[in-house]
Amino acid sequence: MALNVTQKLIKEHLVSGEMKPGSEIGLQIDQTLTQDATGTMVMLELEAMGLDYAKTEASAQYVDHNLIQEDSKNPDDHLFLESAAQRFGLYFSRPGNGVSHPVHMQRLAVPGKTILGSDSHTCANGCMGMLAMGAGGIDVAMAITGEPIYIKMPQVMGVKLTGELPDWVSAKDVILEMLRRHDVKGGVGKIIEYYGPGLDHLSAMDRHVIANMGAELGATTTVFPSDHEVKRFLDRQERGDDWVELTADKDATYDIYEEINLSELEPLVAKPSSPGNVVAVREIAGTPIYQSYIGSSANPGYRDFAIAAEIVKNRKVTNGVSFDINPTSRQMLTNLVQNMHIASLLQTGARLHQAGCNGCIGMGQAPASGRNSLRTTPRNFPGRSGTKEDSVYLSGPETAAVSALTGEMTDPRTMDFPYPDVKDPAESNVDDRLLDKPLPLEEARKTELVKGPNIASIPEMSDMPDALDLPVILKVGDNISTDEILAGGARVLPYRSNLPAISQFTYEDVDPTYVDRAMETKETSGHAIVGGLNYGQGSSREHAALAPRYLGLRVVIVKDYARIHWQNLVNFGVLPLKFTNEADYDKLAKGEVLQFKDLHNQIKHSDQIKLTLADQGDDITAEHNLSERQRDIVLSGGLINWIKERQKV
Amino acid sequence: MALNVTQKLIKEHLVSGEMKPGSEIGLQIDQTLTQDATGTMVMLELEAMGLDYAKTEASAQYVDHNLIQEDSKNPDDHLFLESAAQRFGLYFSRPGNGVSHPVHMQRLAVPGKTILGSDSHTCANGCMGMLAMGAGGIDVAMAITGEPIYIKMPQVMGVKLTGELPDWVSAKDVILEMLRRHDVKGGVGKIIEYYGPGLDHLSAMDRHVIANMGAELGATTTVFPSDHEVKRFLDRQERGDDWVELTADKDATYDIYEEINLSELEPLVAKPSSPGNVVAVREIAGTPIYQSYIGSSANPGYRDFAIAAEIVKNRKVTNGVSFDINPTSRQMLTNLVQNMHIASLLQTGARLHQAGCNGCIGMGQAPASGRNSLRTTPRNFPGRSGTKEDSVYLSGPETAAVSALTGEMTDPRTMDFPYPDVKDPAESNVDDRLLDKPLPLEEARKTELVKGPNIASIPEMSDMPDALDLPVILKVGDNISTDEILAGGARVLPYRSNLPAISQFTYEDVDPTYVDRAMETKETSGHAIVGGLNYGQGSSREHAALAPRYLGLRVVIVKDYARIHWQNLVNFGVLPLKFTNEADYDKLAKGEVLQFKDLHNQIKHSDQIKLTLADQGDDITAEHNLSERQRDIVLSGGLINWIKERQKV
Repeated sequence: MALNVTQKLIKEHLVSGEMKPGSEIGLQIDQTLTQDATGTMVMLELEAMGLDYAKTEASAQYVDHNLIQEDSKNPDDHLFLESAAQRFGLYFSRPGNGVSHPVHMQRLAVPGKTILGSDSHTCANGCMGMLAMGAGGIDVAMAITGEPIYIKMPQVMGVKLTGELPDWVSAKDVILEMLRRHDVKGGVGKIIEYYGPGLDHLSAMDRHVIANMGAELGATTTVFPSDHEVKRFLDRQERGDDWVELTADKDATYDIYEEINLSELEPLVAKPSSPGNVVAVREIAGTPIYQSYIGSSANPGYRDFAIAAEIVKNRKVTNGVSFDINPTSRQMLTNLVQNMHIASLLQTGARLHQAGCNGCIGMGQAPASGRNSLRTTPRNFPGRSGTKEDSVYLSGPETAAVSALTGEMTDPRTMDFPYPDVKDPAESNVDDRLLDKPLPLEEARKTELVKGPNIASIPEMSDMPDALDLPVILKVGDNISTDEILAGGARVLPYRSNLPAISQFTYEDVDPTYVDRAMETKETSGHAIVGGLNYGQGSSREHAALAPRYLGLRVVIVKDYARIHWQNLVNFGVLPLKFTNEADYDKLAKGEVLQFKDLHNQIKHSDQIKLTLADQGDDITAEHNLSERQRDIVLSGGLINWIKERQKV
Repeated sequence: MALNVTQKLIKEHLVSGEMKPGSEIGLQIDQTLTQDATGTMVMLELEAMGLDYAKTEASAQYVDHNLIQEDSKNPDDHLFLESAAQRFGLYFSRPGNGVSHPVHMQRLAVPGKTILGSDSHTCANGCMGMLAMGAGGIDVAMAITGEPIYIKMPQVMGVKLTGELPDWVSAKDVILEMLRRHDVKGGVGKIIEYYGPGLDHLSAMDRHVIANMGAELGATTTVFPSDHEVKRFLDRQERGDDWVELTADKDATYDIYEEINLSELEPLVAKPSSPGNVVAVREIAGTPIYQSYIGSSANPGYRDFAIAAEIVKNRKVTNGVSFDINPTSRQMLTNLVQNMHIASLLQTGARLHQAGCNGCIGMGQAPASGRNSLRTTPRNFPGRSGTKEDSVYLSGPETAAVSALTGEMTDPRTMDFPYPDVKDPAESNVDDRLLDKPLPLEEARKTELVKGPNIASIPEMSDMPDALDLPVILKVGDNISTDEILAGGARVLPYRSNLPAISQFTYEDVDPTYVDRAMETKETSGHAIVGGLNYGQGSSREHAALAPRYLGLRVVIVKDYARIHWQNLVNFGVLPLKFTNEADYDKLAKGEVLQFKDLHNQIKHSDQIKLTLADQGDDITAEHNLSERQRDIVLSGGLINWIKERQKV
């Protein structure tokens, strides 16, 4: 049977299930990527799981998010991550080496492999003929221990590219066109595979731009073939040996078809405050801008900066426009310096920032109140820039650079100078002195984890008892969000690597007494929480399950769950039940004690769990929808315990 | 009479007083410098004073401190400062243009002139043959309105430089030697003037290094002559016409004599946590370092970065050392880029940060807990790096760069390669596109101040009534610090440009009810505070006087004052009284009402103020030590009102 690239990648890594859209499949993971914002918890999970040495082919820990060091917390995290990378056999990319996605592409990506990363833009490395997926931290921790990842087999959308991009139009406009057509939910449940003759005119880094923002379509990932261009890219990285060809079979088919004629594209822009809010730049030409921002993993390439530099060279950025340059990798920054592009940018009045994620994730470069910011970044969700009620537009570097010159949103095709010709730099400056190789096993075993005062190991958590008497210490209504369970933000997030500390913020706005009352149950029976519909909606943060679990949460009973929080409860060993009869919600008052008996047997062999309301003497039933693997996980007390057992084998 | 350079500068600008050490002298100010951390309040003061247009020859508003934009507050401040610079006829140096002191030296400093700056390192421009002094914000605001500054005539310490610096020793070691000899109080009440044949071997930027850290000696300022080297410097800045010669007369004398033979100096380092804690690097060689940091106004020059680049070029920074490069001006960064020094630094593994103050003032680059940081910055006070219990060492760039290579404190003379030869760059890249010129008067008058949501004008404050009935709403003990009156830190400081908001934190730890009770008095009589010895010690922050004044504070009566807070109370129109009889402190309970009559006459014509304790019917006396000018200021309701009246003339 003729296969497309996606099918080949999946087939090659399939450990369970059937490649039928919608079926659960298990995939072996070859590589992982963690960054510092999510990585500290992943490393603490690896420690708690008892991992000796990474079982993947290559796992890399990057430091690119929390580069601003206003106190010791971020640099302490960096040292912890360094020591954890050394202990567990990971690559370690130091602060200053750049953003994970382009650096990984340059130095570690291998066509034909799978990669799982605790960053939603991990899909960017789909540009290298890889199956590259973002996931939660604990999924990545599992992958590092050698476990497969389980997903629903997506549909494959084949996007045929024809023609060639006109002057002033670049790869960013291709993905903006996809977002214009399909909006931010258009890729859900799908892998997007690009093919066709148009590929010949897109460099590997151009493809990175397109694959990166597949995340904004909601796609499982984006896949490009590994062709001669990927070979050329790897050759320049002095890694030609890592290349394998991986292209679709001649008669390969797709579940869904789409076509883009590159020749017909024009400069596009996503208006505030959604990447799917796409219009032609000409439609909003003249809108004043206050900031023009070049950088991020959505436009990380040498050419993205070089084209901006050539556009502004010997010209003048409009007075009052903050022209922010955020380089993405040390290698590219060095190239840009050597080829005088950084000098051109500085001379025109640019602000040059350190190499890293920076403003793309709200770490600096926030715009002023009420002003328009035009960025080459992937996302313009409300407030992501750091500024409340911000007004962020997304475009390619051509539009951003030209608009910096004019001070207003400008279709670059209207400029009175020719489209600059940007060539690859003569030197590639391949140098891994900020990318440490994994230590050999024996040395790794001698490494101690370096834990600053704000980093605490995850305490051991017990497995599921066979009988439980659980007081209901909190009863909440519908649509409780993970923000209400555990807030994000600058007050709470600094404790992300310290479970005992961060758990003190649990449910603080809903019921400030919850934490103290939960702590009382922690050492004895534990407790239960009762909720309504759509419990745990919103952000996917795992701490919203882990923190109450640490405080003694054993069982949640609700009317129904938001999907990701339900998964997180399972992962951390909380039994997530749904009322069989929604009316029972009204029976369960705060203070009620829920009695569970023969729980092991019930969880293992039934979808229905019987429980007794101790005060009322009433029995009710509730159900779970756990798979066999998930039943084991909940009985073990969560994934960490479950993996720990398997590490011993 | 033969004069030294300091005496010539003072004589030329003297508007009142006698040039006798210890006498109060009034000096005309030609230039001012404000930065963004202190500048927003200065601009609000100018607004409140009703300034039309700056009366100085050149006043410049720099943006170099708060460059990290994690939300809209800093960028809103930048826009406010831009609009205020336009409104009041100031230069405006945009974010990215660099640190105030080196940029001012390059673009605006003029030999023979006076400059007052709301930054303690304003003294750096003493390298240009200027009388350059740091001061409080409102003093600088006054200078901008054309008022003289009043200081006590300092002693002049003449430091004769002989010899020539050996290889591996640079200007930083000269000022560290001064700190080794005289410690951090050794310059108090003095102006330090350098002279002698050794000057011929120190560039203007070398002299900047020495003048800058005169602040760490506690000196009023540091003065260098304006000689052929200053001419050369200005020529390269395309400002040769600004040069005038200014050297000491042949027979000039000094109040104090000191001599340094440059040839005898060796690499020095200030150990934690005082700039005066100086030893030879060789004495602590081998101490491990975690961070090597090149930058700040204490080592701002092209050569300071270029020498570091040449030292590390084609060598490797020790794995795990964070090698942080903080460029100081856009012009120098462009030069360093063009001459491949930035490439050398990046290739060795450096982290390149944006041009600005950055980590020197705790805005990023904080070291990890328990690790040693070696910096070319001017200060290592405890916690200034942002990290609690930090361990910061100060050295020149040679020691910092060499130690980055070895990973430990290293005397650079022990390296097995020759001292690199650094030449001035061929191009000087003079370009003021990020330094806006003042608007012409007519255009300035059309400019509206741009106030983000966190910026509020200073409310009008009334003049001193002739009779007052003031309830004592707070009574405190000895040694109340300005931190207790109004805390600094990340929770309070963001409201620095919003007096109504920041005043809500007044005295919060001492008496959380103070603010509410004070607000009640605000619209009626106002209130009084009673205190003990050393009232208002600690930080010089003006808000500690301005905030309670805003809340209705009219009179403070204490046993005695810390000098600067006393001055600040006067400046903001609070009558600062001392008990004539300290035992009266015990008579004044909280709740007591103090009755003042014929107050105008009393303040104007007597040092003793009579007041009646309403409840007890008792009269007591208290005294003030106000000069004639200060009596006027207090009667006007503070400097802002006083100046406002004078602006109308």
